[in-house]
Amino acid sequence: MNTSEFRRRGKEMVDYIADYIDGIEGRQVYPDVEPGYLRPLIPTSAPQEPDKYEDIMRDIEKIIMPGVTHWHSPHFFAYFPTASSYPAMLADMLSGAIGCIGFSWAASPACTELETVMMDWLGKMLQLPEAFLAEKAGEGGGVIQGSASEATLISLLAARAKVTRRLQAASPGLTEAAILEKLVAYSSDQAHSSVERAGLIGGVTLKAIPSDGKFAMRASALQEALERDKAAGLIPFFVVATLGTTSCCSFDRILEVGPICNKEAMWLHIDAAYAGSAFICPEFRPLLNGVEFADSFNFNPHKWLLVNFDCSAMWVKKRADLTGAFKLDPLYLKHSHQDSGLITDYRHWQLPLGRRFRSLKLWFVFRIYGVTGLQAYIRKHVQLAHEFESLVNQDPRFEICAEVTLGLICFRLKGSNKLNEALLERINGVKKIHLVPCHLRDKFVLRLAICSRVVESAHVQLAWEHIRELATDLLAAGME
Amino acid sequence: MNTSEFRRRGKEMVDYIADYIDGIEGRQVYPDVEPGYLRPLIPTSAPQEPDKYEDIMRDIEKIIMPGVTHWHSPHFFAYFPTASSYPAMLADMLSGAIGCIGFSWAASPACTELETVMMDWLGKMLQLPEAFLAEKAGEGGGVIQGSASEATLISLLAARAKVTRRLQAASPGLTEAAILEKLVAYSSDQAHSSVERAGLIGGVTLKAIPSDGKFAMRASALQEALERDKAAGLIPFFVVATLGTTSCCSFDRILEVGPICNKEAMWLHIDAAYAGSAFICPEFRPLLNGVEFADSFNFNPHKWLLVNFDCSAMWVKKRADLTGAFKLDPLYLKHSHQDSGLITDYRHWQLPLGRRFRSLKLWFVFRIYGVTGLQAYIRKHVQLAHEFESLVNQDPRFEICAEVTLGLICFRLKGSNKLNEALLERINGVKKIHLVPCHLRDKFVLRLAICSRVVESAHVQLAWEHIRELATDLLAAGME
Repeated sequence: MNTSEFRRRGKEMVDYIADYIDGIEGRQVYPDVEPGYLRPLIPTSAPQEPDKYEDIMRDIEKIIMPGVTHWHSPHFFAYFPTASSYPAMLADMLSGAIGCIGFSWAASPACTELETVMMDWLGKMLQLPEAFLAEKAGEGGGVIQGSASEATLISLLAARAKVTRRLQAASPGLTEAAILEKLVAYSSDQAHSSVERAGLIGGVTLKAIPSDGKFAMRASALQEALERDKAAGLIPFFVVATLGTTSCCSFDRILEVGPICNKEAMWLHIDAAYAGSAFICPEFRPLLNGVEFADSFNFNPHKWLLVNFDCSAMWVKKRADLTGAFKLDPLYLKHSHQDSGLITDYRHWQLPLGRRFRSLKLWFVFRIYGVTGLQAYIRKHVQLAHEFESLVNQDPRFEICAEVTLGLICFRLKGSNKLNEALLERINGVKKIHLVPCHLRDKFVLRLAICSRVVESAHVQLAWEHIRELATDLLAAGME
Repeated sequence: MNTSEFRRRGKEMVDYIADYIDGIEGRQVYPDVEPGYLRPLIPTSAPQEPDKYEDIMRDIEKIIMPGVTHWHSPHFFAYFPTASSYPAMLADMLSGAIGCIGFSWAASPACTELETVMMDWLGKMLQLPEAFLAEKAGEGGGVIQGSASEATLISLLAARAKVTRRLQAASPGLTEAAILEKLVAYSSDQAHSSVERAGLIGGVTLKAIPSDGKFAMRASALQEALERDKAAGLIPFFVVATLGTTSCCSFDRILEVGPICNKEAMWLHIDAAYAGSAFICPEFRPLLNGVEFADSFNFNPHKWLLVNFDCSAMWVKKRADLTGAFKLDPLYLKHSHQDSGLITDYRHWQLPLGRRFRSLKLWFVFRIYGVTGLQAYIRKHVQLAHEFESLVNQDPRFEICAEVTLGLICFRLKGSNKLNEALLERINGVKKIHLVPCHLRDKFVLRLAICSRVVESAHVQLAWEHIRELATDLLAAGME
């Protein structure tokens, strides 16, 4: 494909995308296909000679779209949102064309420098303590990771390296394996599965701290575990606190937990993957109070800040803690500015070596929406969540199962888990809307997350009417 | 930005991209900026109110482009190529618009199923043994990772979990820490730094096997290390063999090393990050002979197969080895087809949870180029490399430092390392072309990699003339 054909096909693709997004409400949100549907529809091997471009685009509608779960449909209320906006898409097109791999400053200075400054912009929007910003030429700074899972893992690995260095400095004979065996990390029993996975990968014990009645990790429960483990000769070294848990968007009490971490020299990582975007609004910023106690903080603009996947924003107070865990410098990656102290080589901050020019997405989105536009977007979603909450509250057959703080509502029919499982099965069977469930303690609960950029009050009302009707049918059939 | 503005801006962006790529030869390949150049050029915080789109696009030329290292310039010969093609860019636009997060089959069936089939197509293009393909409903299959570094790490973690299970089954009292302490992994002393990093992250000892005169890992050296370590009570469990090393594109002898791995029940991972793309040509496929001994194999279509970053192709013979190392299933990620045995939940195959619809890029590129088009592309680059090699060979002041097999030439002036360092400094100072060096044993060597999609014989000739002139100046100045 030459440049002039790209001009033509690119513009057609822009129109296809615009049509797709404009018409997304008309597509069934969840597909009808069964596992294995796609393989019989396409050849068993790649074509020897080129196919026609028209045939590929025809196959998009014929083969791909029937198997797509439409995450950006206003009828999609599952998981958490994944961000999508036109400015981010434009920036991503440009990022793809520049196509630099920004593992070091020299590999493309603009890629590294825009990232550092955009992470400062974003940090200021969140009112992060100055220690997390790179601006003042301090020891902290931000980096774009691929996902919150990676940020958690990297924090754990950095904390592991740090405690190992400290213990070996105090007792030079101590082996790494002897230390590893005794390390303990903690998170709430509501933490995301990726935290457990980070523990598995890092080879350290991870203990779940029982959350309180509001599904929050509190000082008392953490302190209790800590004392027990220290008495048993273990070495507590790492705590993940979650702001906005996946199941019910609960908030660990970082103002309580933070001081304990600092006192015990445990690394505190705050995972606000979903909720973090809301902290750009002054009225939600108090939820982040206590971040000053953290060593690292992470949230996903690619969830709720209109920046298309992937863009997970992570800050550390001491960048040397990350680079100290990972730094390896072969000659083919060295460059003349490396030791100037002025530059950042982001490859030492992350797991992979390669990285895209992702900060362009932040730049475009911040500038096209402005901070006020982004705040308005968050507020609209939160308001829609409260609208749904009040609808649920008006129906005595239903109950709200956790406090609605941001854009997630956990609710259920008063009655058995079986009843609620049956309700969800009907909802996802009819496919007018799409939801996923969670467990809160022993209760099976339905989660409705406000997701789409184009979701309006009418969609929320429609979703609720639909759920009520299915519930009425179910209850009429005698289920309890 | 509403849809109609996106239509307009999107088409302008397509033209900007087409102009950028068409005019890339005219841009200086490596930027003039100094560290810290960007921050003073933009505001210190995000705008409260929206900026104008025109201002952003103006800033691209004014602020971003002066700091870009142009990886797709035909004057760029550094590192290894990073792929770029129009069909991949079109597919990436579509992927961004669909914007699904394909962590499970249900999260977007098309995303998972196209990936499985595209990995089969690609596996067949490489003539991988059937055990690596998913098609036959066997135990193997392919997955798209973000980078070769992640593939290496995942293999190591899967191997670690597997050997731990085996040893604990044999001796139930054995702790993980006791096992970890004794595990040893091996790679050639020419392996990429990401292998060492995987060892650090996994908490296992990694030993470098001395490579032979052709910078290849051989059976004898591996066997020697193995015997020594086993005699010392250690547990060898993992070997990374590299096909196409970063320094000089040497090839570990997998036909020799593979049988040892199988005999000793060590996991063999083959990292062919750069070279792998060439194996779609029958004349280069013999370099992959021995892959039948491997447990996992990885290469980067995002390097040399015209698929824009990121797209790292990984296959395993036993998918249960990966999922066995990582599988965690919270309720909010469960879905009704999960236990059918028919479906793939790729989140169990990778480190992050989220993932883009990257297989669209493979589909577009395979169909627009056809296998013959992709083969022609590889062959053209290899031919250009040999053209440069023969130019070097015609100048008695220079020497070739490693066999030229694919698109990389390692060369130097006969003389001191200092002389060659000075030569590289001049080359990268003038910025007509861009190269990076490597060390081969004690020699400082220049690496010229054929990178750009649009590089032609004329560019290679020009690069050589330029290098020769700078060398002549340097030698005339009396340097040796």
